[in-house]
Amino acid sequence: MLQGLVLNSIHFGDVTFRPDGVYKSPMEASEHEIYDYVICTNKALDPSALPGTLAPVVTPEVTTIVLIQNGVGSEIYLTEAFSKNTVITCVTWVGAKQDSPGVIEHNNGDQITMGVAWNKNLDRIVEEKKVETFATILRNGGTGVQVDDDIIARRWEKVVWNAAWNSFTALTMLNTQQFLNSSEEAIVISRRLMTEIIDVAKAQGIGLEYKLVDELIDKTLKSHGLVSSMMMDLKNNRPMEVEGILGNPMRAARKFGVATPTLDLAYVLVKAQNWRVTNPSKV
Amino acid sequence: MLQGLVLNSIHFGDVTFRPDGVYKSPMEASEHEIYDYVICTNKALDPSALPGTLAPVVTPEVTTIVLIQNGVGSEIYLTEAFSKNTVITCVTWVGAKQDSPGVIEHNNGDQITMGVAWNKNLDRIVEEKKVETFATILRNGGTGVQVDDDIIARRWEKVVWNAAWNSFTALTMLNTQQFLNSSEEAIVISRRLMTEIIDVAKAQGIGLEYKLVDELIDKTLKSHGLVSSMMMDLKNNRPMEVEGILGNPMRAARKFGVATPTLDLAYVLVKAQNWRVTNPSKV
Repeated sequence: MLQGLVLNSIHFGDVTFRPDGVYKSPMEASEHEIYDYVICTNKALDPSALPGTLAPVVTPEVTTIVLIQNGVGSEIYLTEAFSKNTVITCVTWVGAKQDSPGVIEHNNGDQITMGVAWNKNLDRIVEEKKVETFATILRNGGTGVQVDDDIIARRWEKVVWNAAWNSFTALTMLNTQQFLNSSEEAIVISRRLMTEIIDVAKAQGIGLEYKLVDELIDKTLKSHGLVSSMMMDLKNNRPMEVEGILGNPMRAARKFGVATPTLDLAYVLVKAQNWRVTNPSKV
Repeated sequence: MLQGLVLNSIHFGDVTFRPDGVYKSPMEASEHEIYDYVICTNKALDPSALPGTLAPVVTPEVTTIVLIQNGVGSEIYLTEAFSKNTVITCVTWVGAKQDSPGVIEHNNGDQITMGVAWNKNLDRIVEEKKVETFATILRNGGTGVQVDDDIIARRWEKVVWNAAWNSFTALTMLNTQQFLNSSEEAIVISRRLMTEIIDVAKAQGIGLEYKLVDELIDKTLKSHGLVSSMMMDLKNNRPMEVEGILGNPMRAARKFGVATPTLDLAYVLVKAQNWRVTNPSKV
């Protein structure tokens, strides 16, 4: 970290970022500071374990937790575990890659939509102020920020996309265009999985519309063929974000009594691939 | 073929088989003989194309067509195309491998259950005689043969097994035991797919029982972990028997108005993998 992280950005130019501190764990980080913000930008591999991991760096009433991650449902674990802390959750659109260690090429977008995962124990006005303060910090740095009162709906909208294309591309090692060309039924199944996710959202009172399926299918058909992070992770034998993208929607479906047979099989198959990747000695 | 096929068999000993004729196509074979039997032991890659392929070697009222293949539904294409010919269809249990070209190691079993795919245009007594004659030929050679009046039910029973384990092992590259260990939901989904296949069979009046699911799951849990022909085909970039094992049950489900969401996704994913294997230039 002496050399810092080199960021070659289409928007911010070439900068080198040298953090004030680098720690091996939240426990180690807790020895040095009380934190106003804890921002999670790690992969959402095990959302249910997040509260335990973060506990050392979260000071009640002081620390705001910010999730900039894929998937849905991770906030629930946090708002339940930290009843006196605001949780901000974000949907981000950014294109970046790291071809060599510590050198990040930022090549597309830097928009972020954020909002509060409302905590019924906290004053809504206070929580609104916290998200506005955080939004202002990012805006002052030049990032495009939208604050959305219903960020959970935005997260579920994104997971409608991710649940289908992440799992189907990973399970077939085809990009979206190739997958949709592989059989007449592929588009039917894609629509079916997207519809199941919307069913689950609606059963919880989250405001999604079924026309989103048409929009996402149209968008995909117009593209040249997209690969997903899950497909790239599997290709490189890395663990995938199974639980945030597929597991949490499936568990929400069961809680609210929604049938999701397509999601269930997608989950089981991706989970099995993930098991293969994470248990190489057993295969 | 001058050297013949070498068969090293646990049951029949070491023999060399030299066929009377080897032809590149049924069309070429039709120039030499009128055939009493045409026995299809090829992979069931495209069952709907079978009548067109076999037409040159099928003589009306003379030729009996025998299928020794995986899957269900292939007989329907044949009985519709050849209204004056008996179709015999078989479920076979045999263990064999071909590690070097033309040398077959027969290492386990040689039982076969056969029966007529009854043709409503033909006399049942005549068809019964034809299957008995064919069974006698095989019995005289030393093979264990059972004739079953309801062979279509036996075929569907086998496809309950094949639809689940072929597709799940191929899509995860895990054996059955590893797959069932990979998540708590894996066994639930396995039972669900098997149940859907039985739903489809029952809707057609084919006599399967739901307890078959328990039997097949128990059998699998007691095994050390099985790999499937579909998994081996995919691993070796060979086309898979998608249509006979998954496609025909799915189309029968639609014809008889049975919902098969698990089967539908399994079909689409295996079909996509098959597309990837058979369209290497497009990937």
